[in-house]
Order: sequence, then C-alpha cells, then structure tokens
Amino acid sequence: MKATAELQVVPIGSGVSVRKDITRIVELLQKYDFIMETHALGTNIEGELADILAAVNDIHETLHEEGSVRLLSILKVGTHTDKDPTLAGKQL
Amino acid sequence: MKATAELQVVPIGSGVSVRKDITRIVELLQKYDFIMETHALGTNIEGELADILAAVNDIHETLHEEGSVRLLSILKVGTHTDKDPTLAGKQL
Amino acid sequence: MKATAELQVVPIGSGVSVRKDITRIVELLQKYDFIMETHALGTNIEGELADILAAVNDIHETLHEEGSVRLLSILKVGTHTDKDPTLAGKQL
Amino acid sequence: MKATAELQVVPIGSGVSVRKDITRIVELLQKYDFIMETHALGTNIEGELADILAAVNDIHETLHEEGSVRLLSILKVGTHTDKDPTLAGKQL
Repeated sequence: MKATAELQVVPIGSGVSVRKDITRIVELLQKYDFIMETHALGTNIEGELADILAAVNDIHETLHEEGSVRLLSILKVGTHTDKDPTLAGKQL
Repeated sequence: MKATAELQVVPIGSGVSVRKDITRIVELLQKYDFIMETHALGTNIEGELADILAAVNDIHETLHEEGSVRLLSILKVGTHTDKDPTLAGKQL
Repeated sequence: MKATAELQVVPIGSGVSVRKDITRIVELLQKYDFIMETHALGTNIEGELADILAAVNDIHETLHEEGSVRLLSILKVGTHTDKDPTLAGKQL
Repeated sequence: MKATAELQVVPIGSGVSVRKDITRIVELLQKYDFIMETHALGTNIEGELADILAAVNDIHETLHEEGSVRLLSILKVGTHTDKDPTLAGKQL
C-alpha cells in the first residue's frame, strides 16, 4: 500500500546539536526507493508503507549500534484508497 | 529491540465520531503481545519495535479493507540502549 | 522568544478532501509576521512563540465559525537559547 | 473554546534522563485550571484552548530560564463544536 509520511527522529541526550544524526538518518533513508523531501522539521516520504516502517526500524537499530543512547521518532503516516497518495498531490 | 510508543490513528472523512474505528484499532492491537494503555489521545504500547511497526501496517490495511477511505496515523516511538524502555518506567 | 514550529491542522469529518481547509489555514497564517514553508505534511513556521500559539487559537476559532465541526492540530515547537532558531538553520 | 490536548515536552541535549524536567513541566501545568492525565508519552489536558497554549509558552520560557538549552514540544489539540470535548468522553 502506498503512503505519504513524515519522519522526525530526535536524538535525546546526545548534545544540543543533532545535525550529524540528521545527516545519517537521511543517508539511511536514501537506501530505500522513496521520493523524499527533507525540511526543517523532518523528512517527508512517499513510498510503500511497509518500506517506510522498515526504514524506521533500520534507523533506530543503526543509530543505536553507532552509539546513540536514546531516540524518539515522530512519524505521521497517511494512506487513502480513493487515489494513490503522493507528496506532490498534497502541495497547495 | 524493545520500544515504547504511542499510536493515534485518525480516520479522516468517515464522520465526526470516530469511536467505532478506535474500538477496532484497539482490537487489532490486542492480537499482539503488547503491554498497552489506551488513553484519550492514543494508545501507549510497550513491545518489540518491529511488532509495533507491523501493527501500524496491519491497522491501515485492515481498516481500508473494511471501508475506511483515508487514515492518518501519528506514531511516537522511543528506544534506548541504557536500559529497556517500559511504560511503567516512564510514569512520574 | 523565537521558535521554529510545524503546524498540521486536520479537519475530521468534513470529507475526504481537506484541500479547501488547508488553503484557508495558510491564508490565516499569512496575517502573521512569520517565515513559512508549506509542505505535504504541514506548514513550517519561524516566528515569535507567542504569535505561533495565538495563530493556532485563531485558526481553530475561525474554522469552527466557518463551519468545521471537528479539528485536530498537531504542533511541533522548538526553542533554544544557544542561538536563535531559524528554519534556514535547520536545513541540511 | 474548550479543547482536549496532549503535550509532550522533550528536553534535547540535557542528558539521557529527562525525569526532572518532566516533573517540573507537570508542576507548571498544575498552576492552570486543567483536568490532566499524565501518562508515559505526555500529559493529556482538558481546558480552555487559550490556557493550554499559554501553558506551552510558559513552560518553554520557564525551563529556558531555569537552564534548558533546547526544547521540543509536541502538542496535539482537538476541538469540536457539536459537543464539549472532554478527556472522559474519549475513553473507550
């Protein structure tokens, strides 16, 4: 099932600057076949729902392996059956 | 990997009252081996991260099959490596 | 206090298409002195925290007056004291 | 206008344990005339929308004055006009 989503991963307790973690997260997302738009409060993703959810699991596992102690992800996922959801279709 | 999460699934365009959908979502979550607390703004979940993500996919697929046209899920997921995250451990 | 924020207002029960409401919300936000970026999952806002919060109140009141029966807003707000938060500064 | 809300304030970069901050946030919320339920992923609030938004401003200002360098709040706000929203009315 196709979905549009927004993912924001917040490293907690790894210091005030989280830029390095954000760069790594976007790098991990790029392994997937997603249409993506990174913005100031997260990354918008268009792709298969199952792949988006797998990417969340992958990001948490990888960042913890690479030293992150605590992570909070905020994920919004939208699906509908009347037409395929696209990021482009949600622009005004 | 163990995680604590909060899932709120919002049916859009299925009417002002969403109680029937919420009951169905909690029913679908109960198939998993989760510790759960349903509250006014979502359901808190303690369990394996992979299972929590699988449940989100399952809920979207099932509700669409059962007639929902548009769904928005808001998922917060917390993981940490210094100790196992639990819902009980997050109470004040 | 300066803040960066993301606001997504979800009209519930007003039909599957929410484009008209989203257009109205952006119109209401434009009355404020914000730097804004509207994207597929919300509108990013840079401005005074008090103004951002006033805008949320304004949007709920105005949309209800104009006929919306049920609204859910998801607001993320970031502030920090080490430097002024900006949307531009959060780009990779 | 009455609202139901959920507020989660995440201190970033103040260490892995955020319990002390959470205790302070709940203390600040208790100054308001809210019905509240603190749970593992935030605090549910029933009250006037304007008061809830004022509390968010108050919490950010106070925690920064008391030393927090970076804060992220995730606020969900629900309002409807067909009946007064209550936390109790949202229980299954």
